Amino acid sequence: MDAVAASERLRRQLAFVVEIDKLKQVLRQTVLMDASRQENSAEHSWHLAMMALVLAEYARAPVDLARVVKMLLVHDIVEIDAGDTFVYDDQAYLDKAQREQQAANRLFGLLPPDQAAEVRALWEEFEARATPEAAFAAALDRFHPLLHNYFSRGVAWQRHGVTADRVVERNRHIADGAPALWEVARQLIDQAVAQGFLPPGPGGGAQPARSDG
Amino acid sequence: MDAVAASERLRRQLAFVVEIDKLKQVLRQTVLMDASRQENSAEHSWHLAMMALVLAEYARAPVDLARVVKMLLVHDIVEIDAGDTFVYDDQAYLDKAQREQQAANRLFGLLPPDQAAEVRALWEEFEARATPEAAFAAALDRFHPLLHNYFSRGVAWQRHGVTADRVVERNRHIADGAPALWEVARQLIDQAVAQGFLPPGPGGGAQPARSDG
Repeated sequence: MDAVAASERLRRQLAFVVEIDKLKQVLRQTVLMDASRQENSAEHSWHLAMMALVLAEYARAPVDLARVVKMLLVHDIVEIDAGDTFVYDDQAYLDKAQREQQAANRLFGLLPPDQAAEVRALWEEFEARATPEAAFAAALDRFHPLLHNYFSRGVAWQRHGVTADRVVERNRHIADGAPALWEVARQLIDQAVAQGFLPPGPGGGAQPARSDG
Repeated sequence: MDAVAASERLRRQLAFVVEIDKLKQVLRQTVLMDASRQENSAEHSWHLAMMALVLAEYARAPVDLARVVKMLLVHDIVEIDAGDTFVYDDQAYLDKAQREQQAANRLFGLLPPDQAAEVRALWEEFEARATPEAAFAAALDRFHPLLHNYFSRGVAWQRHGVTADRVVERNRHIADGAPALWEVARQLIDQAVAQGFLPPGPGGGAQPARSDG
């Protein structure tokens, strides 16, 4: 934005807008529902925001929908520096928090201070999962790849050797934010096992999904 | 969603969520800022929603930001059926409205009736550009590809033989929604001409941009 004569404030805002274009190049382990390619974190964020609009009535507690949407729009921006951490990669999770804090400092710090603080607060609220809005947003963030995995017949699950017991373990917090969606999720997991594209795991059968309330 | 036991309402909502995954496969003429590939309409919609959050203070009139964001999230969904219509393709614009109405009928019609009506109203408000929210959203929708074209050094402009006079003509309504962003846009157009990656057009020089208030 060096070529532009504008206020320092507007120049910082535009620099942020330009920088976050890079989120379109952060690839997730999830594939599109037709399995044609990996999904990126920008289009994933759009899809989640749309899901919030359509599925808000299933939040466990009443939510401020505008804040849920804002949270979902910003929740993955740190991945521009920190990368996407696959939810079943236990090793990468060890230093995830530290990598993401550094990313938040740099990326949100591009904005004018008041907006940097606002966006950071949204991101931290999402990460903490303590408010009804964050619990619902986090539920959507887990329910979304489950839908993708189901419709792509488990491409990403199989690539990483993920079994149904781990899917249940990693996704059960959907129930904290959106009980009705966890009900659907459990059925999809059972179906995936029944249809043979999700191995049941050490326990065997589709039992882990069903036995989890 | 045939495999899922859920209310008819939730099944329709999920069918819509699954269907709109296809927006990630609708390619725009715009390329990413590093020119590595074409942008798709889902990630474009995310970027616009983020721009609304960051740039809302430049709306000509005070806006309900939540409605602007919703409008931007849904504004391109009709492209799943109707395709992206390139803003400089005069021929394709002839039947754009009809193609998009049919698309809206089918796509929004997947939702339960109350939500179908709500989403359709948002889309129609965006298209009509009559409210402050729609004027601002439309300004962002035009300012965004201009930023992309500038940072990718005019790849899409050159591919389609677009000249500065047409860029000004097609984008001047940015001023209706966000005067300060039109000021930046004019500078970017002038810079693109000066740096040689946007031909000035029949009139010559960067004059068309500067002479437009």
